Amino acid sequence: MNIAIGIDIGGTNTVWGFILESGEVLATDHYSTIAFRNPEDFVASVSDQIKQTLAQHPEWNVLGIGIGAPNGNYFNGTIEYAPNLVWGDGIIPLAASFEKALGTPTWLTNDANAAAIGEQIFGVAKEMKDFIVITLGTGLGSGFVVNGELMYGHDAFAGELGHTTIVRNGRLCGCGRCGCLETYVSATGIVRTAELWLKERSTPSLLRSVDSLDAAAITACAQQGDAFALELFDYTANQLGFALANTIALTSPEAIIFFGGLSRAGDLIVAPTKHYMEAYAQNIFQNKVKLLLSTVPEHHAAIMGAAALVWKNQAN
Amino acid sequence: MNIAIGIDIGGTNTVWGFILESGEVLATDHYSTIAFRNPEDFVASVSDQIKQTLAQHPEWNVLGIGIGAPNGNYFNGTIEYAPNLVWGDGIIPLAASFEKALGTPTWLTNDANAAAIGEQIFGVAKEMKDFIVITLGTGLGSGFVVNGELMYGHDAFAGELGHTTIVRNGRLCGCGRCGCLETYVSATGIVRTAELWLKERSTPSLLRSVDSLDAAAITACAQQGDAFALELFDYTANQLGFALANTIALTSPEAIIFFGGLSRAGDLIVAPTKHYMEAYAQNIFQNKVKLLLSTVPEHHAAIMGAAALVWKNQAN
Repeated sequence: MNIAIGIDIGGTNTVWGFILESGEVLATDHYSTIAFRNPEDFVASVSDQIKQTLAQHPEWNVLGIGIGAPNGNYFNGTIEYAPNLVWGDGIIPLAASFEKALGTPTWLTNDANAAAIGEQIFGVAKEMKDFIVITLGTGLGSGFVVNGELMYGHDAFAGELGHTTIVRNGRLCGCGRCGCLETYVSATGIVRTAELWLKERSTPSLLRSVDSLDAAAITACAQQGDAFALELFDYTANQLGFALANTIALTSPEAIIFFGGLSRAGDLIVAPTKHYMEAYAQNIFQNKVKLLLSTVPEHHAAIMGAAALVWKNQAN
Repeated sequence: MNIAIGIDIGGTNTVWGFILESGEVLATDHYSTIAFRNPEDFVASVSDQIKQTLAQHPEWNVLGIGIGAPNGNYFNGTIEYAPNLVWGDGIIPLAASFEKALGTPTWLTNDANAAAIGEQIFGVAKEMKDFIVITLGTGLGSGFVVNGELMYGHDAFAGELGHTTIVRNGRLCGCGRCGCLETYVSATGIVRTAELWLKERSTPSLLRSVDSLDAAAITACAQQGDAFALELFDYTANQLGFALANTIALTSPEAIIFFGGLSRAGDLIVAPTKHYMEAYAQNIFQNKVKLLLSTVPEHHAAIMGAAALVWKNQAN
């Protein structure tokens, strides 16, 4: 039985799974990322674990390994200057290390690109050749599929929608610049707006009495009809709709698929975003682009996206 | 000897050429576009002319026909609702008509996409897989090559950089919306800025005494060191640099290539655009993207871009 191994490397934990082309996850395992001082020990330990599992399943034929990692460079199979990995300083040839340790072809890309390929292999974009996946988490990540293939650009850095400037001299971003989309539109962006408005305005809101002001709390309040929380979604959707109208003018995708964090709010964010995107869009792009929610199961999405790299390369 | 026929359909005239893979133009001819009432007569007359030329050159082996046309749809080989063609109302299956009339494979695309393919086959982008061609004429057209192929999007409408909004509630655009890039950055855009400033300001300028206030006059004045004209270029470059910083965050191209109209100003527009693009760009994109001028001879560029469609499809 042919399987792919998908490895998701996070700052704290690394999770992996053994996955069929149907998307069925046969087994998963995990290891601390943070426990290692250098990438060599990390690869050796994870590979040993994987070998033990494979030894118990002689019926599995491993076609390859896919890795999703922060600051992953698909062209080189490297992690480059990943600030959130304790052993991630410099350029680390992680794909080559796993390929050597496990003797099987290995591909590596960043998280948002893995999510896009995951959507194409296992999710709602199965029949699509031109679409965008947007992850609305701490930041705003994006992966663009153009003509059936991931758009990497000349240096594998393409797809930074979260760092397009939508407000000149706007909010300060972690990248050092001002007005980036992700400072307004992300799980943290909507919280920034909420904090600002709660200070500036005296409007009553259920949000004034929540324990922790986060995207989940804002969503819960909006679901209860809190006008302040609903206006937060409207404002966030307005900024996102503006950015998407500009984006579809460039790439004209069949669909834009939302994933993670803020997208759990569902139609609270999708419906007004659609409204504003259509209002801002040029007429030749209006009423053509679908806004969808990811259909990849969220708790397995990261390893499925990584494993999808293998199935994608098998198909090509 | 293998040749491609490139046909450029303009509102007034249609020009075509017989072109080698080297880019050498063996012969050209033209016909009035406007003299015809319907596309059938137009195709019949142009095809007759082409047949006569081919009859005189039995040594030419025609591999195919490429057509560049306003509102051209590559997927369908159609011209769709072209406002500047007298017989262009509705959806016209022009590629199929020429294919039938001349018995040779025919491809059709819009002008900016043809320019991009022309640059890849005959020009400065020969070795590139990821680049953008921007035409700075009456409007701002763009063609994006991604992973070696034209990015058409799901409906062949991708690449409308000129209609991305760069100033919310900005200048009224011909598309009916406000603040589109092309209202600031194009041969007409810079003239709009000049007209506005000449009214608003009392600054002296050579431009106050030119016969015709157009992009060529602004360029000539700037070349003579006119501070007002130089500031017009600086302002225009600032707007373009802002738009390009956002664009490279999405597609991360190796180069952006300027063509036509305003690009004849050369470094007057390219150097400040580069400055502003780098200043606005995220650090991971800085000092990576080349800004270049087209090297396709301008007087043959349209038919060469059209013919390039044939050589491109031969290569695939």
